[in-house]
Amino acid sequence: MNHIVSLAALKKPLPEALLVALAALFGDRFSTTQAMREHHGSDESSYDPMLPDAVVFAESTEDVAATVKLCSEYQIPLIPYGCGTSLEGHILALQGGISIDLSRMNRMLAVHAEDMTATVQAGVTRKQINHEIRDSGLFFPIDPGADASLGGMAATRASGTNAVRYGTMRENTLALTVVTADGTIIKTGTRAKKSSAGYDLTRIFVGSEGTLGIITEVTVRLYPQPEAVSAAVCSFETIADAVNAVIQIIQLGVPIARVEFLDENSVKAINANAKLGLPEKPLLLFEFHGSENGVKEQAEVVQAVVADHHAIGFEWATQPEDRSRLWAARHNAFFSLLQLRPGARVISTDCCVPISRLAECMLSTKADCEAHAMIYSILGHVGDGNFHVQMLVDADNPEEITCAEGINSRMVALAISMDGTCTGEHGVGLHKMDFLIAEHGDGAIASMRALKHAFDPKNILNPGKIIRW
Amino acid sequence: MNHIVSLAALKKPLPEALLVALAALFGDRFSTTQAMREHHGSDESSYDPMLPDAVVFAESTEDVAATVKLCSEYQIPLIPYGCGTSLEGHILALQGGISIDLSRMNRMLAVHAEDMTATVQAGVTRKQINHEIRDSGLFFPIDPGADASLGGMAATRASGTNAVRYGTMRENTLALTVVTADGTIIKTGTRAKKSSAGYDLTRIFVGSEGTLGIITEVTVRLYPQPEAVSAAVCSFETIADAVNAVIQIIQLGVPIARVEFLDENSVKAINANAKLGLPEKPLLLFEFHGSENGVKEQAEVVQAVVADHHAIGFEWATQPEDRSRLWAARHNAFFSLLQLRPGARVISTDCCVPISRLAECMLSTKADCEAHAMIYSILGHVGDGNFHVQMLVDADNPEEITCAEGINSRMVALAISMDGTCTGEHGVGLHKMDFLIAEHGDGAIASMRALKHAFDPKNILNPGKIIRW
Repeated sequence: MNHIVSLAALKKPLPEALLVALAALFGDRFSTTQAMREHHGSDESSYDPMLPDAVVFAESTEDVAATVKLCSEYQIPLIPYGCGTSLEGHILALQGGISIDLSRMNRMLAVHAEDMTATVQAGVTRKQINHEIRDSGLFFPIDPGADASLGGMAATRASGTNAVRYGTMRENTLALTVVTADGTIIKTGTRAKKSSAGYDLTRIFVGSEGTLGIITEVTVRLYPQPEAVSAAVCSFETIADAVNAVIQIIQLGVPIARVEFLDENSVKAINANAKLGLPEKPLLLFEFHGSENGVKEQAEVVQAVVADHHAIGFEWATQPEDRSRLWAARHNAFFSLLQLRPGARVISTDCCVPISRLAECMLSTKADCEAHAMIYSILGHVGDGNFHVQMLVDADNPEEITCAEGINSRMVALAISMDGTCTGEHGVGLHKMDFLIAEHGDGAIASMRALKHAFDPKNILNPGKIIRW
Repeated sequence: MNHIVSLAALKKPLPEALLVALAALFGDRFSTTQAMREHHGSDESSYDPMLPDAVVFAESTEDVAATVKLCSEYQIPLIPYGCGTSLEGHILALQGGISIDLSRMNRMLAVHAEDMTATVQAGVTRKQINHEIRDSGLFFPIDPGADASLGGMAATRASGTNAVRYGTMRENTLALTVVTADGTIIKTGTRAKKSSAGYDLTRIFVGSEGTLGIITEVTVRLYPQPEAVSAAVCSFETIADAVNAVIQIIQLGVPIARVEFLDENSVKAINANAKLGLPEKPLLLFEFHGSENGVKEQAEVVQAVVADHHAIGFEWATQPEDRSRLWAARHNAFFSLLQLRPGARVISTDCCVPISRLAECMLSTKADCEAHAMIYSILGHVGDGNFHVQMLVDADNPEEITCAEGINSRMVALAISMDGTCTGEHGVGLHKMDFLIAEHGDGAIASMRALKHAFDPKNILNPGKIIRW
């Protein structure tokens, strides 16, 4: 926490001239009320709130540019805010400054159905975009669980349950409009599906967590709504059986749309909450997209493979209502877990390893949780080698928090030793800055720092996140 | 050409101390012979050769790091060289300096079949990697035509015929080992399939054409060899019919592995060369990968769609020898065209547009070629909206070259006006630096320049390419 303390010491009051200028520009879209500051200084991480000094509600890229120019002039930190659903402390105002809320930038700018692309303002959420394009025969697949904004998802390089088939925000972002640190508005790409035209500015800003520029518009790829969708569920005696089945399914080239792992604790929690009566053992939940025949064929291959790995209770869900019931249970797994210890705080982890090491990494972490009598569950986007452990701790008990952070640290260290990454999809924020160094080494971190210094020479863009200045 | 002239004026002789140091380090792997310099100062672009002063043959990342350190000390340009197959002047030694040849770095470092990844030295070519992994049940799909090195393909963000299904080097490079401008060796990523861990160094170096660092090792994704492969070919009366058929195929979600367009001039050339007897009209060549049933189903959908677009002469090629014959013709289209005007130089273009604009962009460019009585053909990776015009010009006739460059300029300007890109897969090199500015605008170019200055502060890494200092 030394980093946080030392940065908080850098906090300075906003200059009166800046307050006057922002109030003049934005009127009632500029706020310094305690309630607004609190709302924008809290996220879904396990950190305590850290409040910005003021909040600006942007409605256009030009609003963002004007705010950046003022913050640059006065060297005041500026933190972009979408839906506040990030998990690693991304939006916390370490040094105060201005939170720029993009949620009112929620206009669909263009849908090009023939090209299967859409351009939206950064505040459009994933549910909103899918609602808006529902009659086009297309959909936007990235689903990080929360109804996050597309700007925030791009900034965090988000993914989720569909990534095994459709990729992450990295693969699905074609172009961005970005306001750079001096208030310049740039476009990072075009709607061409591929390009070799110079440095990959799009991929530089995707995953940069507001530290290199502020994303104001996002052009994404869309996909045809599958002709047929089906789901299936089965259980295993061991985690290794479940993971080995997934490895084989992927090696066979089955274009599976989703394959989610739930450990027995997750299953217990959702059974208790949703009365599903599933076997309380490691479980895989599948979704298949394709033609009628294609989906049938994928499912048959999967059924044969899981049988080879001693699956039990294989069950189909071809009807939409059955599928919805299963996936609702998966989506509610997190909240179901919370019921097991009312009032507890969740410490959520996130690592990603080569899939051949996944079972070992999961089992080691599970043993660590058990050894420390943690209340926990494991959920995994196993087709990508990505999993999360949720640990329920008493927020008022520092020992429990330290214990959970210890388990997280050992898990991350193990993942890195397996040529994996400290974060598959949650990002670095405040929480993973030391892990980032452990993963990349000093040389690569020096390159990242050179990039930060080049793109944000005054260190005003979400300062103190990803890497230390 | 003013840029080239002004940079050539910056050329300075290599310091004697540098020559001595390189000779001491590399012995007969260091050369200043005219033949070696000529070999490394020519590529497949339409530029005249521009020779480096000396050539180093690296055999390890450490060799590269030692060379970079020396070049940094003496501020001498350093140009990485793989197979010399680049098309836009990437490897030409504008200011002389050292060409560092990585072709002897051709070792397979690791194949992880369970994870479907391979790590190779930068000099391994795409044919070599596929040969080495042929018994693993896996393959590496990126096929830019030439048997390029994976380091060069990463540096150029290459793609080719399979990109419509499998993506480009951008999507398929998991991690790189890179020597940065001060000789530091960094790893840009891990073998995890996805990651949100900080700035995307991998994607910064992919497509950077040796201007930000020297790629020495590449970790790529592999794919299961498809259970079944089939191909088909059909002809159309008009380019618009062919392109509209492709748009519909992609919108239906058919996971087509390859869909190549050949205009009637390409067909004439390959008919003349390979005696194929194909109708001399716009043609589509398809390849399907999947299960036996899946391939059959894809092909049936495609057959129905092309029939709706007035296709003629639909023909299957399910036998490997028939497929090979068709694809060999496609691969030889370029050389077949050369036969039409022996001794001519080829000026090859490359742009990529949203697919809804593809027919219009092709037709406009075709009309421009016809209006100037150019000998030309058009080939397209049409599923991605990417096409190439090859123009055969008399290298000794400046008017013809100017005319061809004019057609290219108008084509690129049109592509950019359609929200497309000045290069889909060939890169910027020397040839497209002005087009890059036209495409991105000054603000984005300023960000690219900031990146170049941050990563290569002495401007020694392939100077004068992509952006002006």
